Amino acid sequence: MKNTFGQSVCVTLFGESHGEAVGVVIDGLAPGIEVDAEFIKAQLSKRRPSGKTDTPRVENDNFQILSGVFNGKTTGTPIAIVIPNENTKSKDYNYGLARPSHADYTAYAKYHGYEDYRGGGHFSGRVTAGLVAGGAIAISALKGLGINIGTHILRCGSICDRTFEDVEKDVLAIQGKSFPVLSACEDGMTEEICKARENKDSLGGIIQTAITGVPSGVGEPWFDSVEGVLSHALFSLGGIKGVEFGLGFGFANVTGSVANDSFEYKGKDVVTKTNNNGGINGGITNGMPIIFNCAVKPTPSIARVQDSINFIKEENEQIEIKGRHDPAIIRRICVVVDSICALTVCDMLAQRYGTDIFLKGLGK
Amino acid sequence: MKNTFGQSVCVTLFGESHGEAVGVVIDGLAPGIEVDAEFIKAQLSKRRPSGKTDTPRVENDNFQILSGVFNGKTTGTPIAIVIPNENTKSKDYNYGLARPSHADYTAYAKYHGYEDYRGGGHFSGRVTAGLVAGGAIAISALKGLGINIGTHILRCGSICDRTFEDVEKDVLAIQGKSFPVLSACEDGMTEEICKARENKDSLGGIIQTAITGVPSGVGEPWFDSVEGVLSHALFSLGGIKGVEFGLGFGFANVTGSVANDSFEYKGKDVVTKTNNNGGINGGITNGMPIIFNCAVKPTPSIARVQDSINFIKEENEQIEIKGRHDPAIIRRICVVVDSICALTVCDMLAQRYGTDIFLKGLGK
Amino acid sequence: MKNTFGQSVCVTLFGESHGEAVGVVIDGLAPGIEVDAEFIKAQLSKRRPSGKTDTPRVENDNFQILSGVFNGKTTGTPIAIVIPNENTKSKDYNYGLARPSHADYTAYAKYHGYEDYRGGGHFSGRVTAGLVAGGAIAISALKGLGINIGTHILRCGSICDRTFEDVEKDVLAIQGKSFPVLSACEDGMTEEICKARENKDSLGGIIQTAITGVPSGVGEPWFDSVEGVLSHALFSLGGIKGVEFGLGFGFANVTGSVANDSFEYKGKDVVTKTNNNGGINGGITNGMPIIFNCAVKPTPSIARVQDSINFIKEENEQIEIKGRHDPAIIRRICVVVDSICALTVCDMLAQRYGTDIFLKGLGK
Amino acid sequence: MKNTFGQSVCVTLFGESHGEAVGVVIDGLAPGIEVDAEFIKAQLSKRRPSGKTDTPRVENDNFQILSGVFNGKTTGTPIAIVIPNENTKSKDYNYGLARPSHADYTAYAKYHGYEDYRGGGHFSGRVTAGLVAGGAIAISALKGLGINIGTHILRCGSICDRTFEDVEKDVLAIQGKSFPVLSACEDGMTEEICKARENKDSLGGIIQTAITGVPSGVGEPWFDSVEGVLSHALFSLGGIKGVEFGLGFGFANVTGSVANDSFEYKGKDVVTKTNNNGGINGGITNGMPIIFNCAVKPTPSIARVQDSINFIKEENEQIEIKGRHDPAIIRRICVVVDSICALTVCDMLAQRYGTDIFLKGLGK
Repeated sequence: MKNTFGQSVCVTLFGESHGEAVGVVIDGLAPGIEVDAEFIKAQLSKRRPSGKTDTPRVENDNFQILSGVFNGKTTGTPIAIVIPNENTKSKDYNYGLARPSHADYTAYAKYHGYEDYRGGGHFSGRVTAGLVAGGAIAISALKGLGINIGTHILRCGSICDRTFEDVEKDVLAIQGKSFPVLSACEDGMTEEICKARENKDSLGGIIQTAITGVPSGVGEPWFDSVEGVLSHALFSLGGIKGVEFGLGFGFANVTGSVANDSFEYKGKDVVTKTNNNGGINGGITNGMPIIFNCAVKPTPSIARVQDSINFIKEENEQIEIKGRHDPAIIRRICVVVDSICALTVCDMLAQRYGTDIFLKGLGK
Repeated sequence: MKNTFGQSVCVTLFGESHGEAVGVVIDGLAPGIEVDAEFIKAQLSKRRPSGKTDTPRVENDNFQILSGVFNGKTTGTPIAIVIPNENTKSKDYNYGLARPSHADYTAYAKYHGYEDYRGGGHFSGRVTAGLVAGGAIAISALKGLGINIGTHILRCGSICDRTFEDVEKDVLAIQGKSFPVLSACEDGMTEEICKARENKDSLGGIIQTAITGVPSGVGEPWFDSVEGVLSHALFSLGGIKGVEFGLGFGFANVTGSVANDSFEYKGKDVVTKTNNNGGINGGITNGMPIIFNCAVKPTPSIARVQDSINFIKEENEQIEIKGRHDPAIIRRICVVVDSICALTVCDMLAQRYGTDIFLKGLGK
Repeated sequence: MKNTFGQSVCVTLFGESHGEAVGVVIDGLAPGIEVDAEFIKAQLSKRRPSGKTDTPRVENDNFQILSGVFNGKTTGTPIAIVIPNENTKSKDYNYGLARPSHADYTAYAKYHGYEDYRGGGHFSGRVTAGLVAGGAIAISALKGLGINIGTHILRCGSICDRTFEDVEKDVLAIQGKSFPVLSACEDGMTEEICKARENKDSLGGIIQTAITGVPSGVGEPWFDSVEGVLSHALFSLGGIKGVEFGLGFGFANVTGSVANDSFEYKGKDVVTKTNNNGGINGGITNGMPIIFNCAVKPTPSIARVQDSINFIKEENEQIEIKGRHDPAIIRRICVVVDSICALTVCDMLAQRYGTDIFLKGLGK
Repeated sequence: MKNTFGQSVCVTLFGESHGEAVGVVIDGLAPGIEVDAEFIKAQLSKRRPSGKTDTPRVENDNFQILSGVFNGKTTGTPIAIVIPNENTKSKDYNYGLARPSHADYTAYAKYHGYEDYRGGGHFSGRVTAGLVAGGAIAISALKGLGINIGTHILRCGSICDRTFEDVEKDVLAIQGKSFPVLSACEDGMTEEICKARENKDSLGGIIQTAITGVPSGVGEPWFDSVEGVLSHALFSLGGIKGVEFGLGFGFANVTGSVANDSFEYKGKDVVTKTNNNGGINGGITNGMPIIFNCAVKPTPSIARVQDSINFIKEENEQIEIKGRHDPAIIRRICVVVDSICALTVCDMLAQRYGTDIFLKGLGK
């Protein structure tokens, strides 16, 4: 399946960094969902480099919807969106010289030298523009069901944001922000990122996501647990190297009596007093917000001289990566994670409630 | 797909804790792989409770291979293994009283009261016996290709094992151990687990897995990254709440210049000086050992009185879980993780190299 | 995927003719469906040899439900059913001598000599016992939604049955018959089959299936058309070599003005005046009965001396197939086709309306 | 999965008749396959209307390859091809008036009125332009392995072509023809088609396909039989209502002693004396040419007044279809069938031999 993900709502990605275009096909999304070009634009602009923490390369992301939308609404048939590449005059690449912690060498091992290596080719973060464009439609579909998704930077360098408190409210608050944090830590984080760039270095961090409004009973006990399906999709992003739900690795620090989430009735609704399990028990949603963290590794592209190999010449060779790169992708990755989650949640809902659920509503 | 996982090599699980049997079907594994009943038994015995850290309930795990094996070797057609349940005289269950952090409530939300609730039903760890039996054959298949898998307890309570050093050697060393640790920490961990039980409490921890011998070039850039596929399978286990590859969440503590793994030639072989990426770049193996950690939550079944709900009566009700339970499943989960990984790696290899790869060898 | 079929409701088959057992796992069927052991038995007895047209070999088909059923109803988790093999004392097989039009040689080409060749192994019609047992539960689930399936022998040798007229009524009439025909042609067909046996020969024929009660709007325009999915499943049966919907190959004999099915309102319901398209337009159901024919080839096992090869000795060799075989499987295959269709329709409905549709009803 | 088909080599379709474009994504095809724009053009021109038997509407089919091709060869990553629509000034459609035997009504039942109904929308044969463009690359990939595919018109109206004789040679001969027949029947067929148009009527027929060079051992015994997978793909085409392999429905006319294909050695190669099974035994290729027929129904669009319904007004209404339509699609469908088969065979080979088989060759 490779570049296609999902069973009932499926996403197919294509494109390379310096090819004609990147794009996405979304299949299986219900008919009748409003497609708001302004919202897609707004989501793409969150992913676009901007400000002093990002690469200065400018992309316009003028997307074209080729199919699946009619009279401003989804038709129920595949939605193809294409985003032409611009500014891709390729410099002289030194093909064979592997950037450390990038996919140059593994692409060669897999594609035997036929890969489009320019700018990372199909491995480039550029491909996520398609995910964000398609994800925007999924986000709209979910909003119609009362489901919201938000991702903020929990940690960057040594600076930490607060975790979710009033989750519903926090999620809505982040959705409007171009630098998504919950507390006053934008300046601190920006400063650390700029310092890293000055040092010809880069930063990683941790991002935190909440999905609110998903009813209880979604997911499967084996294999297609909510954790399993979401992590599968999230690990598509080469920069994500860890995913933890609820307390996650923090579970190692507590005993069961502390970790267990007690149930209680709040009116007719079942809630848990704590949400250490991140809204999921036995792979299935319990009605509480789904909460998880992703570890984002420091951007591998740094301006320092690094030891490496030339896999064409088959010899060791040092590399000095030219050009202007993001010293941290952690801000830009947030909207990509939201998009992946939205597509995945749409799929899980359509599997459980049928493809027309987005027309009918959850009836909560 | 739910209870079936894999594309070229597929595993299907079935069974409930107190039903007739649990079992597994493995489909797509090449013909000609030796099936060693003694090895399957040995793997099942690693999963079985034993010693003072586990539940005293005794299971015999007398598995029966119903199909797919002929003259001691796989035929290439589906291998069905059934493990009858024993000692399942069900006590009087108080159906409706939800054990906190268990799947009782979410199962009800999903299956509307028709679920077999006895002993956790299909959500029970008992179902992993099928995974271990089937996984044993996958482990044998991989051994024939020079691929080894090993999982050890990296942390339990406050006690930590050392991480992998000489990975190949460490992996082989753990494979023989019933309490899988690399350093002299068995006594300390056992002591903490026993103390937790005395306190009517439970412990979680972190386990660490290495897979050696996987060639470079396996995996996909989008969606079916090695990280994505492995984590999807691993999160089947309700006790696993986090998965991180290489440095994982530790990437937040370092800059790119520290995190990047430099390539170098070691004779004709490409290696990396460090392995912070856990053997995977851009979703694809680079030939280094695949290394990842899983967070294991404390066993939710504790003997203390806990606040909860009765979802049949629709009211709050306290619960005191009777019976004898594992105060920590961290020892027993290691062989399950090895089994899941083996099945998943078999699938990834068969997809890349064809179904006969296990007959032909990797030709490294 | 191989031995697993279906997306939302999945069936996995296992077993060999002379192994321990054959069996089936049904995954994804809704909770709460009644499981009637007597009905499963009755369906299995339709598949079992009986009377003068079939092989005299006796099978008891004592099935065991290992999981997924609790208090007489489906739980929503995988239903595993095992049917132990009996009377499988294997005679001396002359392995390597390929029966013409059987899978002996192709199995060797695929499994390299590791296949369980006894009695056709995994290719044996014996494996369909699992399909019938699992299919019986699917048939019950569909009955609850007002959907009925029936297959009759349209032609055997030179004797033809009439085609469907009052489809609803005809389908119900066939369901009760052990020799499923609509007109008085049992004796004629039986006579021709017996004559074929006397001539050390065998007969094929054509069977016709109707599925009533499927609402309009099920199926997909591309790839997962109703025709595509049903035929995919049906061609699992080695004896089926053709599938045609509605007029099928008869469309070559008529012009569009004759072939087109005119729509009309019958009260509030949309119907077509003719049903030449077999209830499907553009891959999607139109609410009329789904009707299709399958071509069944003559049983390849005949008692005459035939030219063939020994693929182990790699030389030409004549073969004389011993033992007592069905001179025609056309009667026994009808219930297998019903079972396959039931599982496939359950899957299509669950994909469209969600997994709980069998609990909720179609609300027609 | 709907609009995506295949496991190891996958094809995703999108587009509507009167939307911006139609297109295709091919994923999983090996790197290093030559992509010949001229050959793609030539294939598209076979599908394009031309001559007196087709609709006079002109399409240019100026395809654009957006990704997955670099330096004239496949990269191994998804190949996206877009074919912009031209001449799609939509006339005033009388939405709600269902064309008999078309998908207008079933699309409404499925998509609830949100479908793009103009010119048949996503159900239009226009979407096959994407299949043909993508299929052209698959055909090239197979040619490199010595596998050839050819489809000819076996019957149209009352005129019949001869069946395959020297299959290899016949297949190569058809590949070059724009009116694909093996004997001198083009004039007769053309005449009958023109007569049908004069009568405001349309014709169907039967097409026959051969695939040569597929090695023995490809396919699966259950579900993913070669017959099952090919028919699944073929029935995507709304005009195809029957698929039969080898003798197909003709098996009803013969006894086993006539129908069985005797094996024999021809040098070191295993062949069969007859090929009544169409190259497949038990779902698996036996090394002989794969041969099958498809029934093509008469084009539903005819110029006569027909009885029908208006599903918006919910009343009976007569329809007179305006515009110029194909009186027979049987010539144009041949190249589409070749394309579907090529993509499907690529998938089956990649599953069996690994994704690099197209680089390595079959080593026959």
